[in-house]
Amino acid sequence: MTTISLTTDFGLQDWFVGTMKGVIQRIAPGATVIDISHGIRQGDIRQGAFMISQALPWFPSDAVHVGVVDPGVGSSRRAVVIETDGPVLVGPDNGLFIPALRTLTVRGVWSIANREWISPEVSSTFHGRDIFAPAAARIAGGAHPSEAGPELTGLQSLELPEPERHGKAVIARVLHVDHFGNLITSMDTRLFPAESLNELEPELPWGTEKRPEYAGIKSCYHDIPDGQFGLIAGSTGFWELAMNCRSLAGFCRQDPDQPLPFRP
Amino acid sequence: MTTISLTTDFGLQDWFVGTMKGVIQRIAPGATVIDISHGIRQGDIRQGAFMISQALPWFPSDAVHVGVVDPGVGSSRRAVVIETDGPVLVGPDNGLFIPALRTLTVRGVWSIANREWISPEVSSTFHGRDIFAPAAARIAGGAHPSEAGPELTGLQSLELPEPERHGKAVIARVLHVDHFGNLITSMDTRLFPAESLNELEPELPWGTEKRPEYAGIKSCYHDIPDGQFGLIAGSTGFWELAMNCRSLAGFCRQDPDQPLPFRP
Amino acid sequence: MTTISLTTDFGLQDWFVGTMKGVIQRIAPGATVIDISHGIRQGDIRQGAFMISQALPWFPSDAVHVGVVDPGVGSSRRAVVIETDGPVLVGPDNGLFIPALRTLTVRGVWSIANREWISPEVSSTFHGRDIFAPAAARIAGGAHPSEAGPELTGLQSLELPEPERHGKAVIARVLHVDHFGNLITSMDTRLFPAESLNELEPELPWGTEKRPEYAGIKSCYHDIPDGQFGLIAGSTGFWELAMNCRSLAGFCRQDPDQPLPFRP
Repeated sequence: MTTISLTTDFGLQDWFVGTMKGVIQRIAPGATVIDISHGIRQGDIRQGAFMISQALPWFPSDAVHVGVVDPGVGSSRRAVVIETDGPVLVGPDNGLFIPALRTLTVRGVWSIANREWISPEVSSTFHGRDIFAPAAARIAGGAHPSEAGPELTGLQSLELPEPERHGKAVIARVLHVDHFGNLITSMDTRLFPAESLNELEPELPWGTEKRPEYAGIKSCYHDIPDGQFGLIAGSTGFWELAMNCRSLAGFCRQDPDQPLPFRP
Repeated sequence: MTTISLTTDFGLQDWFVGTMKGVIQRIAPGATVIDISHGIRQGDIRQGAFMISQALPWFPSDAVHVGVVDPGVGSSRRAVVIETDGPVLVGPDNGLFIPALRTLTVRGVWSIANREWISPEVSSTFHGRDIFAPAAARIAGGAHPSEAGPELTGLQSLELPEPERHGKAVIARVLHVDHFGNLITSMDTRLFPAESLNELEPELPWGTEKRPEYAGIKSCYHDIPDGQFGLIAGSTGFWELAMNCRSLAGFCRQDPDQPLPFRP
Repeated sequence: MTTISLTTDFGLQDWFVGTMKGVIQRIAPGATVIDISHGIRQGDIRQGAFMISQALPWFPSDAVHVGVVDPGVGSSRRAVVIETDGPVLVGPDNGLFIPALRTLTVRGVWSIANREWISPEVSSTFHGRDIFAPAAARIAGGAHPSEAGPELTGLQSLELPEPERHGKAVIARVLHVDHFGNLITSMDTRLFPAESLNELEPELPWGTEKRPEYAGIKSCYHDIPDGQFGLIAGSTGFWELAMNCRSLAGFCRQDPDQPLPFRP
């Protein structure tokens, strides 16, 4: 039985995620369902897209991934199934899967329109339950994505600002602040090798009087001196700014769209 | 293997939910266990009952549902198994399943007393682990509810105030504030069609100087003008008050028991 | 298929836990994976160790338990597989399993070094994904712990202060504050029978003017008079201080290392 993953901005307080799983068990009994995250900021497609792109390479290659960060639910935005050379992706056509698709080849995109695939009464507010979960369960149970509905061309794009080089300086951004308060930057560790960053220092949006000192590039959290912060080649493939056993984010003003300059 | 769902007020910080799942795997290896919610407010039977009633219709009809919102744990309140024409319900007899039972027919109610079904040493504080999880696992594994213990008659009721009509006005309540800050009202969309609400305006318990303007009935979140709030036929079957990509609850004083009038 | 449990300080906001589960499904398709908790305080090995020791006895005896509370990730601390007369334990060698091992017999300890067992590119920050999850999945799939790598002798210890008796008084500690705000003390209910505590009163680190009155030993939460707090023989095997339907912790200053005296 195929693995199905779920990524949403639904939180875990309500019955939303459990209900999607109930729907899946009805259609594909015994399916293994894995939560990637339900803690995406409400409607934050970029954050959802980042998390999905981070998790997918580690899943079985024939998995079905459902993403529901969907501020346009009930409007005219399209509900799609994306077949790739690896997993099948199910969700709104709003850019949510674009970063994950960078390392995959799209074989086809279909609109979810098959009346037998979706809830008899589709609500205008909970397509996770009424459209996406049942479609994913059908595919996990063996149906081909093309049975979902008419084939589509093109997918909604997603703008992801790349780091800019200004002379020796690099103007990056914070892609994500994780649970530990580490700031994951937009600098890919392959495109920005340690040599290119050794002489640069990050300018953080400090929000407090007390500012930890920059310790430079370190190889693991444990090597960052107490009370200082360092630059680490993260497990994400991006450089991250971190402290040892403390939250660096606690010292900063949080603003996902603000530039993060590294200057000599 | 039957699906088992869990709904509790245990939260996810502690080992409580995981321990219940460990107990279930011991008795019914390979059982599929789905969390509906563990974020019920401590001891809030009404909130738990609402969530259970919302999720259950979407589960396989032969599922076993465990509910543990149980301020009376260890006291004389009864622990029951409820057999219906659909799922089997397992939990304290305190009203937690009453709303879900509205669309089900009760076939029998049994006290959980069978010594072989429960933990050798039953604690006075964690019947989820010691009584309810093992009973649910027995039933998921094929035992009949009647094996749980002596048959009982009657179930504890649960008072659920219905909306009242005063002339053209309707005095409703907020049943639930969801993760997005939407206020789910007690007005059933079938009993209160759009026509009956079109000329009414809700009186919210504003907690801030700035009050969003009421946009009337809208068909999806996306159609509510920015910064305003609207009335939406929610996926719950109840009307809900919502903003587009913002939390309406953030503007209101939260008081689950306060009347919510809709007046001309 | 063997059950695998996960206990970490990763939280549920990010993709970390879901990614570990994706890795497990790739190596051991269909494995049942149970979350014990991902809400351990960042790097708090004692708290993680307590939760693991509480949950393990309730799991299938052949389960594989992964624990990742690992402030030393990427440093020279060892990654180990511990074979016991019951479950297999997988995680960093930093004391995390010591309390759970009190009721188990260790059969062997192995370093996780087998290149075929771990991710081709091991990050320095996410061994849960790159080392521990794949090792656990191998073992759940039937591999013997000794295939993980070279055998080791000795395990890092964990200091756990025992309650001290001073005449009739007992100086205990708070082991854990649970989701309900109950204070779980370090006094084992078998070593400190009710008779020995009947005449003692706890001295809590009150943080507010208003202090609930002590109601003495009670048999369940429901028996504690409203607004007072009592001492309950908890489901953990330890005495806990609690209120009925309220958080006692809300009245106290939280400091896990502070002594909690019970005096005549």
